Amino acid sequence: MPLDLSANLVELTLAICNVESVSGNEAQLADQIQQALGACNHLTVTRDGNAVVAATNLNRAQRVIIAGHIDTVPVADNLPAQLHHFEREQAIVGRGSVDMKGGVAVMLKLASELVSPRYDITWIFYDNEEVASELNGLGRIARNNPDVLVGDFAVLCEPTSALIEGGCNGTIRVELVARGVKAHSARPWMGSNALHSLSPALATLSAFQPETVTVDGLDYRESLNAVMVSGGIATNVIPDLATLTVNYRFAPSRTAGEVEAKLRALFPDYELTVTDIALGARPGLNLGMAQEFAAVVSVPPRPKYGWTDVARFAELGIPAVNYGPGDPSLAHADNENVPVGHLFDCHAGLGGWLRG
Amino acid sequence: MPLDLSANLVELTLAICNVESVSGNEAQLADQIQQALGACNHLTVTRDGNAVVAATNLNRAQRVIIAGHIDTVPVADNLPAQLHHFEREQAIVGRGSVDMKGGVAVMLKLASELVSPRYDITWIFYDNEEVASELNGLGRIARNNPDVLVGDFAVLCEPTSALIEGGCNGTIRVELVARGVKAHSARPWMGSNALHSLSPALATLSAFQPETVTVDGLDYRESLNAVMVSGGIATNVIPDLATLTVNYRFAPSRTAGEVEAKLRALFPDYELTVTDIALGARPGLNLGMAQEFAAVVSVPPRPKYGWTDVARFAELGIPAVNYGPGDPSLAHADNENVPVGHLFDCHAGLGGWLRG
Repeated sequence: MPLDLSANLVELTLAICNVESVSGNEAQLADQIQQALGACNHLTVTRDGNAVVAATNLNRAQRVIIAGHIDTVPVADNLPAQLHHFEREQAIVGRGSVDMKGGVAVMLKLASELVSPRYDITWIFYDNEEVASELNGLGRIARNNPDVLVGDFAVLCEPTSALIEGGCNGTIRVELVARGVKAHSARPWMGSNALHSLSPALATLSAFQPETVTVDGLDYRESLNAVMVSGGIATNVIPDLATLTVNYRFAPSRTAGEVEAKLRALFPDYELTVTDIALGARPGLNLGMAQEFAAVVSVPPRPKYGWTDVARFAELGIPAVNYGPGDPSLAHADNENVPVGHLFDCHAGLGGWLRG
Repeated sequence: MPLDLSANLVELTLAICNVESVSGNEAQLADQIQQALGACNHLTVTRDGNAVVAATNLNRAQRVIIAGHIDTVPVADNLPAQLHHFEREQAIVGRGSVDMKGGVAVMLKLASELVSPRYDITWIFYDNEEVASELNGLGRIARNNPDVLVGDFAVLCEPTSALIEGGCNGTIRVELVARGVKAHSARPWMGSNALHSLSPALATLSAFQPETVTVDGLDYRESLNAVMVSGGIATNVIPDLATLTVNYRFAPSRTAGEVEAKLRALFPDYELTVTDIALGARPGLNLGMAQEFAAVVSVPPRPKYGWTDVARFAELGIPAVNYGPGDPSLAHADNENVPVGHLFDCHAGLGGWLRG
């Protein structure tokens, strides 16, 4: 049964949730999306693996990319999705309702409705977002068909409780290594305790006052934390090696060189190895088109802290924001559920902006 | 072939080394020791498992216990033992030469020679010292035949490079636990970092000035060290649990209650659990008979730091020292070897004292 894009948002969300599409199993849902959008004369539809791209070609001066993934984490006895009537609101309960088939439903509905939007729009429905980064459908499109990913601004319809969440912080992880000299713990003065040498690093971390950095009008709260520690091989041996893994979440205005230098200055007494770095994404809320969008969504934009695929757009030089139905803290939860109100809010927000 | 106690110390040590007696396989060596000592009319010989006890019964006012284990760690292609002629000295090379068949040879030689010593002597040759504590032959004798372990002073012929090493430090291990609140590392302010909470403990450890405590005339150097640390379950999670294992080696004059209270006072902000405690052993060098012994061995006594079976004597209220041939740092080494000079030094030291 093909997707009926003329159905209301609740019926459409339920229908999409109930085509199970755990990462790697997106073919059926991609087929239905391709078929439904293929019937829209104002869209040019292409397929890349299990990703579907639909674009208007109206020669508008600017182009917006609106993207969302169609895969979910594994089902936890929470399909088929169902509409529940709570005291104050209705909600759709089931796997994918929040992350992010509610957003996909809003996208599909608007893709079919916006025959003559104020900007050209490229709608991207992609696969494999919930699994290893190298499988990510958006990344694959960037490699295989970079021309698809051309635009002036992007909206990722990940759940944000229907608020605009701009950009994302970057993240760098480093390992700090302290070395000593092994000895029997009965004669520790024959050695040197590497674990005790972590003391200045932990003192620095405990005392650190993270900055809040304003980027494109949003305040990004930074943080610096130890996330793992290891040291010691036996209870009667003075450790000659101790390792502290530190995670710095930094504002999207900072460069890789800057954050690495900052960490080296904070921890001068350790061997420091960068094990992972992903730059943040600027929210682009200084752009005219972004400000128009924010004006339609009456609640002020706020910064996004977690790293999302908006950073993939940032790498391509495209400012991006997150905006979608559902409480992100319920993503992946067994009781994942999206308030029906969010679906209509997002439909009105995105639609009101793009309709112009 | 029985052991020939009239052979010289080198031949006797080689013969004992070459009766392989890895822990659990001591029967043959115990048989030979029992047979050789049984031929000495001045000794009463008894057997407990693979331990042999030989005692004089001269109604002396005081009794000395002289003990050594007859088992070794596994052979590492280092048997049969051989006499090597180095430039400056001769040494017996092979498994057990240091730990502690050189000492057993000295004991057997003296046991046969000292027909009329100044104190009554109980010679104990025991099994299973190198394995789990509950198998220890000396411990088994204490349970089965406590009357055997009666004396005013004890010498354990463990390797000490032929110096008197008195008593041993005690050891206590505690786990310090810090708790926090888990959070995603993108939003650490939603949680509380347990790992950062280890900072005061490490600062205390780094700054700690351990005491040196004089007990019965020997200076026991104490120490306080972190030996293990763990914390963190994933690199994107703020840890809610961190554990630091701390080892305090304390002078034999301290009680269990005292050291636990001291640690609780040093680390008031943590959940503290005692995971292991073994009290030290006083060297008893204030005793007249110990001072006579020290006078014969011209090098001054020094404190022992590692925990040895002298603590078993301490539990029974018997002061004890270590004194035996061989460098203790070569015990268990594949190139284990005992200088012939040590054998004769110990024979002269113990014999000179006991002969009176």
